[in-house]
Amino acid sequence: MKKTKDERRTLIETTIQQNPFITDQALSEMFEVSIQTIRLDRNQLKIPELRERVKSVAKDQYQNISALEDQDIIGDIVSLEPNHYGKSILTITKKDVFSRNEIARGHVLFAQANSLCVAMVKHIAVLTKESHIHFVKPVHLGDVVMATAEVEFHDDKYYEMSVTSYVEKERVFEGIFKMYYISEDE
Amino acid sequence: MKKTKDERRTLIETTIQQNPFITDQALSEMFEVSIQTIRLDRNQLKIPELRERVKSVAKDQYQNISALEDQDIIGDIVSLEPNHYGKSILTITKKDVFSRNEIARGHVLFAQANSLCVAMVKHIAVLTKESHIHFVKPVHLGDVVMATAEVEFHDDKYYEMSVTSYVEKERVFEGIFKMYYISEDE
Repeated sequence: MKKTKDERRTLIETTIQQNPFITDQALSEMFEVSIQTIRLDRNQLKIPELRERVKSVAKDQYQNISALEDQDIIGDIVSLEPNHYGKSILTITKKDVFSRNEIARGHVLFAQANSLCVAMVKHIAVLTKESHIHFVKPVHLGDVVMATAEVEFHDDKYYEMSVTSYVEKERVFEGIFKMYYISEDE
Repeated sequence: MKKTKDERRTLIETTIQQNPFITDQALSEMFEVSIQTIRLDRNQLKIPELRERVKSVAKDQYQNISALEDQDIIGDIVSLEPNHYGKSILTITKKDVFSRNEIARGHVLFAQANSLCVAMVKHIAVLTKESHIHFVKPVHLGDVVMATAEVEFHDDKYYEMSVTSYVEKERVFEGIFKMYYISEDE
């Protein structure tokens, strides 16, 4: 049975609290209403759009980043434990897709994953040395890509990180990145 | 012994004829004169700057490209034998480097190599599936990167291509790209 407007709004509020990075599209499918209705609901609940929610989380993370400036990052970093773990979000816009088929260009997904890896290394200088990547599924205009990265191995020269990127719950990209660094005392 | 102005200009003309993609920097080192002198020489010889020379060669190649539009290519394609071989040139500008150290971001070199591979496949649709890459040497602001790609293997589903990128004669990037395609009769 379809929920009442008030029931739906209460649930939307809880859902966004639990997963601040959920899209209006996903909410509209979840509650079987139009995207317009979800937008109206968010407005009534005074919950900003996804883009704003991502930016406000991302801002808090940037103080943890050593090796690059904010403007050098492709995607918004929404979670970061330096030298361990990170998460970033990128919405695929017009400039990121091939004009013919609106499929995201490979290097955009690579760039999001790679800059997340650079951001995760808490040393004064870091360089990507090697990478092995797999484009699992095509990503389309408007998709919201969540990249998650974690350190798999490290020694006194480099970090090896694995990245998996998702659209909703589907894996779209996987990669291994070998990141060399220079530490403060070298 | 240093050459006279006329001797130098004759040699510059021949050198650029043999290698249209040589930089003013390389010419200035070759003839032991300043870059300003090289520019003056080129003006006198009515030889356009590197950027213009690249664009004019690139324009002729774009008619060979099936799977994407000109504006989708990162770098200028200066040589192309569809399904076999290709070459592209990219000058590293301010937007391509990390603001802190003026080193080119990895995804820029990846993007040049990847879009060269996409351009080389003469079928209606092509997707990068896998890639193994190695950043051999840092590339800097102002460097002119020449990427060369060739098909190593192909069957009725995909092409495997190897890419090597150079700055002057130094290798800076190597990669293997596995490109899936859809042919006209599918």
